[in-house]
Amino acid sequence: MPSMQGYLIYGLPIIKEGDDLASLLLSLFDFQDGDVLCLASTIVAKSEGRFRDLEGYHPSGRARQMAQEIGKDPRFVQAVLDESAEVLLEKPFLLVATRFGHVGVNAGIDQSNVGEGRILLLPEDPAASAKRLRAGLKKDCAVIITDTCGRPFRAGVAGVAVGWAGIAALRDWRGERDLHGKALEITLEAIVDEIASAANLLMGEAGDGTPAVVFRGLKYPRSGGGSAFMEQSQDVIRPRLKS
Amino acid sequence: MPSMQGYLIYGLPIIKEGDDLASLLLSLFDFQDGDVLCLASTIVAKSEGRFRDLEGYHPSGRARQMAQEIGKDPRFVQAVLDESAEVLLEKPFLLVATRFGHVGVNAGIDQSNVGEGRILLLPEDPAASAKRLRAGLKKDCAVIITDTCGRPFRAGVAGVAVGWAGIAALRDWRGERDLHGKALEITLEAIVDEIASAANLLMGEAGDGTPAVVFRGLKYPRSGGGSAFMEQSQDVIRPRLKS
Repeated sequence: MPSMQGYLIYGLPIIKEGDDLASLLLSLFDFQDGDVLCLASTIVAKSEGRFRDLEGYHPSGRARQMAQEIGKDPRFVQAVLDESAEVLLEKPFLLVATRFGHVGVNAGIDQSNVGEGRILLLPEDPAASAKRLRAGLKKDCAVIITDTCGRPFRAGVAGVAVGWAGIAALRDWRGERDLHGKALEITLEAIVDEIASAANLLMGEAGDGTPAVVFRGLKYPRSGGGSAFMEQSQDVIRPRLKS
Repeated sequence: MPSMQGYLIYGLPIIKEGDDLASLLLSLFDFQDGDVLCLASTIVAKSEGRFRDLEGYHPSGRARQMAQEIGKDPRFVQAVLDESAEVLLEKPFLLVATRFGHVGVNAGIDQSNVGEGRILLLPEDPAASAKRLRAGLKKDCAVIITDTCGRPFRAGVAGVAVGWAGIAALRDWRGERDLHGKALEITLEAIVDEIASAANLLMGEAGDGTPAVVFRGLKYPRSGGGSAFMEQSQDVIRPRLKS
């Protein structure tokens, strides 16, 4: 008996603004209580109409200067700044903290799959999006909205969670003891990120990507604990990037 | 039909030096070609006799100084330094690059599950360990040796790969095009890390942890590409930590 099963949800159309994602998913997959639904942030953003035309952006002097340094379209840089609460790195790429707390390159703005001259922002409030989608599923399912990010010290990109509902971001091992009865040193496991990575593995990045995955059989805490985004006061790397 | 299934391998004894892990696993699980076996680095290290007694370490002046700064046992700090090629951060914790290229806190040395006054080093060459284990499975399986690491910008820890065999670390999307025929921007996906994260999710950290997981149904490249450890020349964060 497998401990966990991963299902790709095939058959979703190309998502447009206003599409009811939860209803579309319900018509394609038979959800059960305890399932964890992972959705690529792109399809959530598309359903929420987060497309923008680059020509709608009027870059500031700062955006123009930053754009020149990294060889990007100044309108794109302006879009990134508009979505950001803080710029962590200006070059060789734009690493920012988004308004909702996620640290990512270019504020997670996507230029793939949306046509020339257009961009796709991340959902404005992915936690709220996840909560709304979860309500639409009519079962006790968790919802994780995933994005793909590079990581310091590691090559390549991996899936991470940018929004979640019906599941705790972190599994708390505090109070647990090891085989010799000693308290465990590592106490918080980023389960939403681990699930997002597993989902990304199945989704695929290319044109035939399937942006919806369900995991069945996972044991997970439904609520409690903190965010998957590190609190700034805890972050020892972030202050060192300010230079 | 699920796209992927994850199996915990139950019934492994507490592993001792010299145990033939591959044979033990073969006696507990019916492997098929294409399976991906994930093993916690701890059991691989134990089978390889990577236990050390702290009293065997004679800390240098540098180790004593560093230990005092972070309130650690100087012998433990000496053990970390012995396993390290480079120290990236001295405080508030010891972040190092191991001799085999992995960046992790305390060089991945474990003080859980090994008894008081003892430590467990990571396998000396996890890639070689993975290759040897893969050969012992007698099927065309991939083997990934996992560890649990904190990540900049993200809360909590997640599983990562420290050694792998029979699978490319990175899936290369170069040449792939999006729905509109545009070349994809993100080209390398760290599949061994994503699988390690999925495995960690199933393994559990506590005393009842099950350190062996098999994934079935994954499509993955068997070889090629680079390492999951970022090349130093590519790393924009690492040079900024030197202060």
